[in-house]
Amino acid sequence: MINENSVRVIPLGGLGEIGKNITAIEYKDEIIVIDCGIAFPDEEMYGVDLVIPDITYLLDKVENVKGIFLTHGHEDHIGALPYILKQLNVPVYGTRLTLGIVKNKLEEHNILSDCELHSVEPGDIVQIENIKIEFIRNTHSIPGSCCIAIHTPVGVIFHTGDFKIDYTPTDGAVMDLERISSLGKEGVLMLMADSTNAERRGHTISEKSIGKTLTKILSNAKGRVIVATFASNIPRIQQIVDASIKNGRKVTFSGRSMENISQVAMELGELNIPEGHIINVDEISNYPNEQITIITTGSQGEPMAALARIAFSTHRKIRIEPKDLYIISASPIPGNGKMISRVINQLFRKGVDVIYEDLEEVHVSGHAYQEELKLIHTLVHPKYFMPVHGEYRHLKHHVDLAKKLGMNESNIFTLETGQVLELSDSEAKISGKVHTGAVFVDGLGVGDVGNVVLRDRKYLAQDGMLTIVVTIEKESYSIIAGPDIITRGFVYVKESEELINEAKEIVRKELDRCLENKIVEWYVLKANMKKSMERFLYEKTKRRPIILPIIMEV
Amino acid sequence: MINENSVRVIPLGGLGEIGKNITAIEYKDEIIVIDCGIAFPDEEMYGVDLVIPDITYLLDKVENVKGIFLTHGHEDHIGALPYILKQLNVPVYGTRLTLGIVKNKLEEHNILSDCELHSVEPGDIVQIENIKIEFIRNTHSIPGSCCIAIHTPVGVIFHTGDFKIDYTPTDGAVMDLERISSLGKEGVLMLMADSTNAERRGHTISEKSIGKTLTKILSNAKGRVIVATFASNIPRIQQIVDASIKNGRKVTFSGRSMENISQVAMELGELNIPEGHIINVDEISNYPNEQITIITTGSQGEPMAALARIAFSTHRKIRIEPKDLYIISASPIPGNGKMISRVINQLFRKGVDVIYEDLEEVHVSGHAYQEELKLIHTLVHPKYFMPVHGEYRHLKHHVDLAKKLGMNESNIFTLETGQVLELSDSEAKISGKVHTGAVFVDGLGVGDVGNVVLRDRKYLAQDGMLTIVVTIEKESYSIIAGPDIITRGFVYVKESEELINEAKEIVRKELDRCLENKIVEWYVLKANMKKSMERFLYEKTKRRPIILPIIMEV
Repeated sequence: MINENSVRVIPLGGLGEIGKNITAIEYKDEIIVIDCGIAFPDEEMYGVDLVIPDITYLLDKVENVKGIFLTHGHEDHIGALPYILKQLNVPVYGTRLTLGIVKNKLEEHNILSDCELHSVEPGDIVQIENIKIEFIRNTHSIPGSCCIAIHTPVGVIFHTGDFKIDYTPTDGAVMDLERISSLGKEGVLMLMADSTNAERRGHTISEKSIGKTLTKILSNAKGRVIVATFASNIPRIQQIVDASIKNGRKVTFSGRSMENISQVAMELGELNIPEGHIINVDEISNYPNEQITIITTGSQGEPMAALARIAFSTHRKIRIEPKDLYIISASPIPGNGKMISRVINQLFRKGVDVIYEDLEEVHVSGHAYQEELKLIHTLVHPKYFMPVHGEYRHLKHHVDLAKKLGMNESNIFTLETGQVLELSDSEAKISGKVHTGAVFVDGLGVGDVGNVVLRDRKYLAQDGMLTIVVTIEKESYSIIAGPDIITRGFVYVKESEELINEAKEIVRKELDRCLENKIVEWYVLKANMKKSMERFLYEKTKRRPIILPIIMEV
Repeated sequence: MINENSVRVIPLGGLGEIGKNITAIEYKDEIIVIDCGIAFPDEEMYGVDLVIPDITYLLDKVENVKGIFLTHGHEDHIGALPYILKQLNVPVYGTRLTLGIVKNKLEEHNILSDCELHSVEPGDIVQIENIKIEFIRNTHSIPGSCCIAIHTPVGVIFHTGDFKIDYTPTDGAVMDLERISSLGKEGVLMLMADSTNAERRGHTISEKSIGKTLTKILSNAKGRVIVATFASNIPRIQQIVDASIKNGRKVTFSGRSMENISQVAMELGELNIPEGHIINVDEISNYPNEQITIITTGSQGEPMAALARIAFSTHRKIRIEPKDLYIISASPIPGNGKMISRVINQLFRKGVDVIYEDLEEVHVSGHAYQEELKLIHTLVHPKYFMPVHGEYRHLKHHVDLAKKLGMNESNIFTLETGQVLELSDSEAKISGKVHTGAVFVDGLGVGDVGNVVLRDRKYLAQDGMLTIVVTIEKESYSIIAGPDIITRGFVYVKESEELINEAKEIVRKELDRCLENKIVEWYVLKANMKKSMERFLYEKTKRRPIILPIIMEV
């Protein structure tokens, strides 16, 4: 079945979609897994909190899975671990900060003590039977981010992880282009590279230039400065801290993930705040406003996060003050633009100033633009190429870029999640498809909400629902109570009394007709009630609420 | 109450929000209304089709309302007319194309013959007792767009409408800067100006430059070209037509609004397609692919519009062909980015090429950037200024721009919808607030869906619902049927049988307890059933479905 001399690359999530990144690499009876991320639900997934990958394929070969190797600590690469490790308890490898964030999550899920975590450094190589996994430093919007080179007997697969090429990163730890170059020289079988920004021309700017802008802004601020950014963007946070100290400001954190991750990062030495410069949020009133910087969550305008709570005056500890300056140091993730705008509008309404990406350079992407991608392709010059991370449009433009660099189209593979790419030293081909999918997490339920439930939620959201209840005495074929009608999310009942009364009359007539004809099979009665009601309501309102006919029998 | 020598400006919609533009201008017992638009529902307004302004204020003074004056034919300026004219039948004034589009709408609503429409030309002045309304040509992304100068005994109010300054518009009809300049010279009491792009530096590019790009793209295309754009963007459509003819292509239209508006525009001479160059969509197979251009709706990725139907192979008449080139000649309206991306991804998956704004200059905004705004402020140099059109953030930046030009902050008024600005020759002040609001249109219902219904729809969307029915014999205080539980959008029932059975048991116990204690008031029984159920379900699932307890009494 499996070619003795082949390695199989199987994206179990993350291809042609944003998030839920997880890839299996299989050689003989060894499987290693790269990343284990969540996706955020899209707007059709009503009520769903998270989406995690379906790992049936791995569970069917549970003995073969040797470990999960993490490129970096972002949610779309590690967020599913607490759920997946409950089903598949294998060793997890990652750099310090990555594992620090993972530990926090596993603790929240009460499974930390059952899990096996191995900390690695960039440059480390982990040997698993026939496969060696090498962590290689890259630059991204979180420290400890790595490319991963998978050395198999068939050849080297080079996975960039999420990356940009920052020649002047804030911590001075530049991407290990030397090692990547020498891997290229030795020969790389396949490159898997981040496609997120494959549509963007040129080169990302350095994180450091954002620091300069922030320092300039802070030095002009007359009151408190409140900066919202991603909690995991430690380089950004470090720069905000540094700029604050330079301007005689104390720093405090607000928002759960901001407090958690900054704590982890400080413990691990990834975030450095000299003593006396960090204060608790309760202490801000002890200092003049112009000596305070607050770093918060909510850069995406999330209604429950700190920034929105401040804006709408529901934050328990932080109230808006007249000379506050708010900085949104982040880009809107597609779909979040309106939420962010709502917060910006509200802050302006309250009379304070807000600076955001449209106005000043207060954010930069962590994903390589075209010129950076060209460099990596050129250094690695692999035999085969598979674009990863990004929507299909990004994969497609990454393919175009590889072709422009001279790569033969037949050596490029744009996979969909679940497709199997089989690589040997002589050829590469898509050899099949395995079971994959999206598992919905809703509250405590994992997988108990699926497409039927979501379809119902969608209809309920559109037009609400209407329950018709009637009690029937079976012996006499007669209605002894009801029909009663109860609606939610359909119409204002008071103003639609006539409509509801007409509806009751229609149900009663339909039931009388059925009962006279001695139709007492509940499913037939119900179907008839439902049908007559649907027809009536659509004609009157052009709406299609979910109709629940209920018959009680006594 | 009303100062004899004052004019009152009352935005009844459109201030600090996108869309629903409608402004009342009141002098003594005369009211004129500028525009009458819809807003599109935001994502929290589940199931709502359109939002129209609440015009209670006008209905209370129905005898005083002299007419509605339209700046141009976009939905956010005319879309509410069919609903508003049913309540308030007053004369409507607008340029030819604007009224052409309005007529179409009134016909659909079967009220055209009851309405009084007056066609005007740019330059025309309409005299209404003490007020003169002057239409002044501007440039925008639809022909026949005008500024409106309202000459009142107190002074001139100059309303820009939506505009940009295009020195080389496709139809050669440049904005009447000369008239605006002479109005400024004579003295303008207040300027009301479009703020949509007040955050953007520089100057919009001319519509003509888009034409050049499109011509270049079309001349290189090897198969059919399918261009999605706004149906009302006649200048854009004219340029696509011209580029097509130049390249030997026939043009056809797809999508209801595209077919309707292009038809109206051709009849009025606003869109010129020489005979023999326009074909019916059924005829496209009679020509080689490289001789076909299809102009469609769906530039916002709307799932039911032509472009998405083509992409997902559900279009009745147009199938994707291998060398098709798709052009999305529009910007995503905030909130639509994900829908558009979905269509782009699908087209790329089908193997065809897609060009959009991120890649080439195939769209330009119809709203003035900062440099254009500065020109208008400078020409008009009004005594007072009120920013209009745009979210609060845009109004705020427009205010900043006016201040930078030297205007005194006390002469600038940022209003919220409903606030009344009272202007006399000696002073201006916000003098009060009138009733305004949003009326939801859902199916055939206008106003029968409100906040309570929407709140229920939101909860239903999040966690679904659960109905508990029980039949009780009142005499014996005993349950004679049920409790039965029916859910929708909550959990997969099959996989949650245990949960549902436990839930039934809990309801039964709660009821028994109540009945034993001779509690038979339905509202108490229901409240207790509901409370025990909520507690149980939240503990088990962390979800809060809407719970409907129903008691049938026999």
